[in-house]
Amino acid sequence: MLFHVKMTVNIPSTVKVEVADELKKKEREFSQKLQKEGKWKHIWRIAGHYANYSIFDVKDNEELHELLMQLPLFPYMEIEVNALCKHPSSIV
Amino acid sequence: MLFHVKMTVNIPSTVKVEVADELKKKEREFSQKLQKEGKWKHIWRIAGHYANYSIFDVKDNEELHELLMQLPLFPYMEIEVNALCKHPSSIV
Amino acid sequence: MLFHVKMTVNIPSTVKVEVADELKKKEREFSQKLQKEGKWKHIWRIAGHYANYSIFDVKDNEELHELLMQLPLFPYMEIEVNALCKHPSSIV
Amino acid sequence: MLFHVKMTVNIPSTVKVEVADELKKKEREFSQKLQKEGKWKHIWRIAGHYANYSIFDVKDNEELHELLMQLPLFPYMEIEVNALCKHPSSIV
Amino acid sequence: MLFHVKMTVNIPSTVKVEVADELKKKEREFSQKLQKEGKWKHIWRIAGHYANYSIFDVKDNEELHELLMQLPLFPYMEIEVNALCKHPSSIV
Amino acid sequence: MLFHVKMTVNIPSTVKVEVADELKKKEREFSQKLQKEGKWKHIWRIAGHYANYSIFDVKDNEELHELLMQLPLFPYMEIEVNALCKHPSSIV
Amino acid sequence: MLFHVKMTVNIPSTVKVEVADELKKKEREFSQKLQKEGKWKHIWRIAGHYANYSIFDVKDNEELHELLMQLPLFPYMEIEVNALCKHPSSIV
Amino acid sequence: MLFHVKMTVNIPSTVKVEVADELKKKEREFSQKLQKEGKWKHIWRIAGHYANYSIFDVKDNEELHELLMQLPLFPYMEIEVNALCKHPSSIV
Amino acid sequence: MLFHVKMTVNIPSTVKVEVADELKKKEREFSQKLQKEGKWKHIWRIAGHYANYSIFDVKDNEELHELLMQLPLFPYMEIEVNALCKHPSSIV
Amino acid sequence: MLFHVKMTVNIPSTVKVEVADELKKKEREFSQKLQKEGKWKHIWRIAGHYANYSIFDVKDNEELHELLMQLPLFPYMEIEVNALCKHPSSIV
Repeated sequence: MLFHVKMTVNIPSTVKVEVADELKKKEREFSQKLQKEGKWKHIWRIAGHYANYSIFDVKDNEELHELLMQLPLFPYMEIEVNALCKHPSSIV
Repeated sequence: MLFHVKMTVNIPSTVKVEVADELKKKEREFSQKLQKEGKWKHIWRIAGHYANYSIFDVKDNEELHELLMQLPLFPYMEIEVNALCKHPSSIV
Repeated sequence: MLFHVKMTVNIPSTVKVEVADELKKKEREFSQKLQKEGKWKHIWRIAGHYANYSIFDVKDNEELHELLMQLPLFPYMEIEVNALCKHPSSIV
Repeated sequence: MLFHVKMTVNIPSTVKVEVADELKKKEREFSQKLQKEGKWKHIWRIAGHYANYSIFDVKDNEELHELLMQLPLFPYMEIEVNALCKHPSSIV
Repeated sequence: MLFHVKMTVNIPSTVKVEVADELKKKEREFSQKLQKEGKWKHIWRIAGHYANYSIFDVKDNEELHELLMQLPLFPYMEIEVNALCKHPSSIV
Repeated sequence: MLFHVKMTVNIPSTVKVEVADELKKKEREFSQKLQKEGKWKHIWRIAGHYANYSIFDVKDNEELHELLMQLPLFPYMEIEVNALCKHPSSIV
Repeated sequence: MLFHVKMTVNIPSTVKVEVADELKKKEREFSQKLQKEGKWKHIWRIAGHYANYSIFDVKDNEELHELLMQLPLFPYMEIEVNALCKHPSSIV
Repeated sequence: MLFHVKMTVNIPSTVKVEVADELKKKEREFSQKLQKEGKWKHIWRIAGHYANYSIFDVKDNEELHELLMQLPLFPYMEIEVNALCKHPSSIV
Repeated sequence: MLFHVKMTVNIPSTVKVEVADELKKKEREFSQKLQKEGKWKHIWRIAGHYANYSIFDVKDNEELHELLMQLPLFPYMEIEVNALCKHPSSIV
Repeated sequence: MLFHVKMTVNIPSTVKVEVADELKKKEREFSQKLQKEGKWKHIWRIAGHYANYSIFDVKDNEELHELLMQLPLFPYMEIEVNALCKHPSSIV
C-alpha cells in the first residue's frame, strides 16, 4: 500500500553541529536500509529546499507510522502524509 | 530532469457530462502516451480526491510546460510544480 | 484499517431542489448500507455546519477511495483524509 | 454530549527528556482514566504525526474545558474543538 | 450552555432581490423569536461587514445545530462555532 | 461604543512560573476592575483554549487601545479587534 | 474617530457594463460628497489593483457602518476595517 | 510618490528592557525627524496592536527602502509595502 | 524605477473562445509594444501555470498603475506588485 | 534554464553580530562570483524587506540546488523556487 510523504527538515540552531551530523548520518543509514527492503520506494530532493518527496510501500497505516516515528530526524521534521492508490490512467 | 507535479481537477458543473467524458478520455490517452514515452514516469491517485501526484522526466522547463499545457483537462486543473533532484540518501 | 474523513457538503444553488433532494436520499441510503457492513464505523454531524466527521474501516487505500468516489454527493464535497492507527494510550 | 478534538503535541527541545517522559507517562495515565470513565470515548493516532483525533463525551462545555486543561501535555498542545451532534444518516 | 457564533452572509447575485428580501425578513423574525425565548442571547453587527457575532444559550449541541439549520439565510451563510464556558476572571 | 476582542494567551516557557502566576493574578484583578466599571462588558473562555472572547464598551478607539495596552498579559497575547454596532434584528 | 478601511472591488462578469458604469459613477459621487464633508479623509488607489486604502473620520462605529453600507459598490466589495488611534510618535 | 506601509513590532523577550526602551526612543526620534521633513506623511496606531499604518512620500523605491532599513526597530518589525497612486475619486 | 509583478490569468469559462482569443492577441501586442519601449523589461512564463513574472521599469507608481490597468486581460488577472531597488550585492 | 527564486533572510538574534557580518560578506562574494559566471542573472532587493527576487540560469535542477545549498546564508533563508520558460509574448 502506497503513501506519499513530504518531509521538511528544520534543525534548530540550538542543536550542536556534531549532534546534527550524527542524526543526519543515522537518517541516511535508516533511509537506505528501508529503501533496500523496498519499503521506501522513492525519495527525491526538492530543489532549493531541505525537504524531500517520498513514496512508501507498507503493509498498513500502522507500519507507515512506525517507520516515520523511527526516523532519527523525526523530531525536527514537518511531515505531510497522503494515501495513494492506483491511478485509472496508469499503465503500470 | 525530474519534476513533481500535483494536479487537482475541478470540472465546473456548467460543463456538460458528454464534454467532460470526452475530455477525460482524451486526458487518459494523452497521459498513457506520455507514460509510454517515459516522460510521465509516475502517476498516483490521491485517495479521496480527484487529484494525482505525478513525476515527469523531461529535457527542460520548456518541455514540462508544453506537456502540461497540452493536457486536455488543463483549463480545469489547479497545478503545483516542484523541481526535483537526486536525494543524497537515494540508493538508486 | 482506519481512516478519518471530514466531508463538507456545498451544493451550488444551480442544482435544482428535487435533484439535490434525490442526491441526499441516495447519500443517506449508501451511508447506511456501508454503516451496516461495518465499513463506515462512525459518522457525526459537526454542529452548525453541513459537514461531518467520519471514521472508515477498510481493507486498504483503494477500498477507501472507491467508497468515497461512489458517494452520491461526492461532486459537491470537499474531503480531507487522514490515515489513523491505534493510539498508544488507547485502552481498546 | 460529544466533542471532536484534534490534539497536536509539540514539546520544545528546551524541555528535558526526563521531564518530557514524565509528562507523557502522566498523560497516558490521565487519558486511560478518562477512557475508563467513558468520557474520552475514542482516541486515534494520526499516521505520521505526533497528534491524535479524539471524541469526548461530556456533560457540557465546562466539563470539556476542565478535562482538556488538566491534560499534562496541555501547555505543549495545539487543540481544535468541534461540537458534534447525531448525524441524520447515522444508524446508531 | 453558551456558544459563540460568527455568521457571514453572502447572498449570490443569482438570487432575486424579492427572494432575498423575503429571506431577510424571515431571518429577522426568526432571530427575534429566539432572542425573546432567551436562546439567542446577543447579536451584534460587525462594522463594515454583512456579518454578526452572536451568543447562543442552548441545552446542548443538538439544539444549537437545529436552531442554526433553521436560519432562513443558512444556505448563504459561512458559520463559525465555538463552545464557551465561564471565564475564571468573570464577575458575573 | 462596543468592540469585540479575541485574546489568545501564549506565555513562553522561558517566563518563570512565579512571574507568570503574578501576571495572571494582576490580569484577573485588572479585568475585574474594568468589568465593575462597565467597560469590559463580557468575557467568556473559549472551551479547550487559553483564550477568550470579550466585549468592551468604551468611549472611543483611544480608550480601547489604552485599556488593552495596560493588560498585564498584553506582551503574551495575540489580539483581534472588531468594531461592533447594533444589529438591525436585535431586540435590545 | 479614525478608521482604516481597505476596499477591494470585484464586479462579477454577470453584471452588465452599463450597470457597472452607473454604479461606479454613483460610487464616485458618494465618495466625493463624503470627502467634502470631511468624513472620508483620505482615499488612495493601490497600484496594480482595483482597490483602495481609505481613512474615515466618523462619530462612532455606527456611523462608519452606515456609510460603508451605503456605498453603491458595497455588494461587490471585500472590506477590511481597523480602528485607529493617535500614534505616540505622531507630530500632528 | 506615496507608499502605504504597515509595521508590526514584535520585540522578543530575549531583548533586555533597557535595550528595547532605547530602541523605541530612537525610533520615535527618527520617525519625528522624517515626519518633519515631510517624508513620513502619516502614522496611525492600529487599536489593540503594537502596529501602525503609515504613509510615506518619497522620491522613489530606493529612498523608501533606505528609510525603512534605518528604522531602529526594523530588525523586530514585520513590514508590508504597497505602492499608492492618486485615486480617480479623490478630491485632493 | 523597477517593479516586480506576478500576473495570474484566469479567464472564466463564460467568456467565449473568440472573445478570449481576441483579448490574448491584444494582450500580446500591448505587451510587445511596452517591451519595445523598455517599460516592460522582462516577462517569463511560470512553468505549468497560465501566469508570468514580469519586471517593469516605469517613471513612478502612477505610470505602473496606468500600464497595468490597460492590460486587455486585466479583468481576468490576479496581480501582485512589489517595489524593487538595486541589491547591494548586484554587480550591475 | 531559468529559475525564479525568492529569498527571505531571517537571521535569529542568537547569531552574534560578527558571525552574521562574516556570513553576509561571504554571501555577497559568492553571489557576485555567480553573477560574473552568468549563473545568477538578476538580483533585486524587495523594497522594505530583507529579501530578494533572483533569476538563475543553470544547466538543470541539480545545479540550481547545489548553488542554493552553498549560499552562506542558506540556513537562515526561506526560499521559493519556480521554474521559468520563455513567455510567448516575449520579444527577446
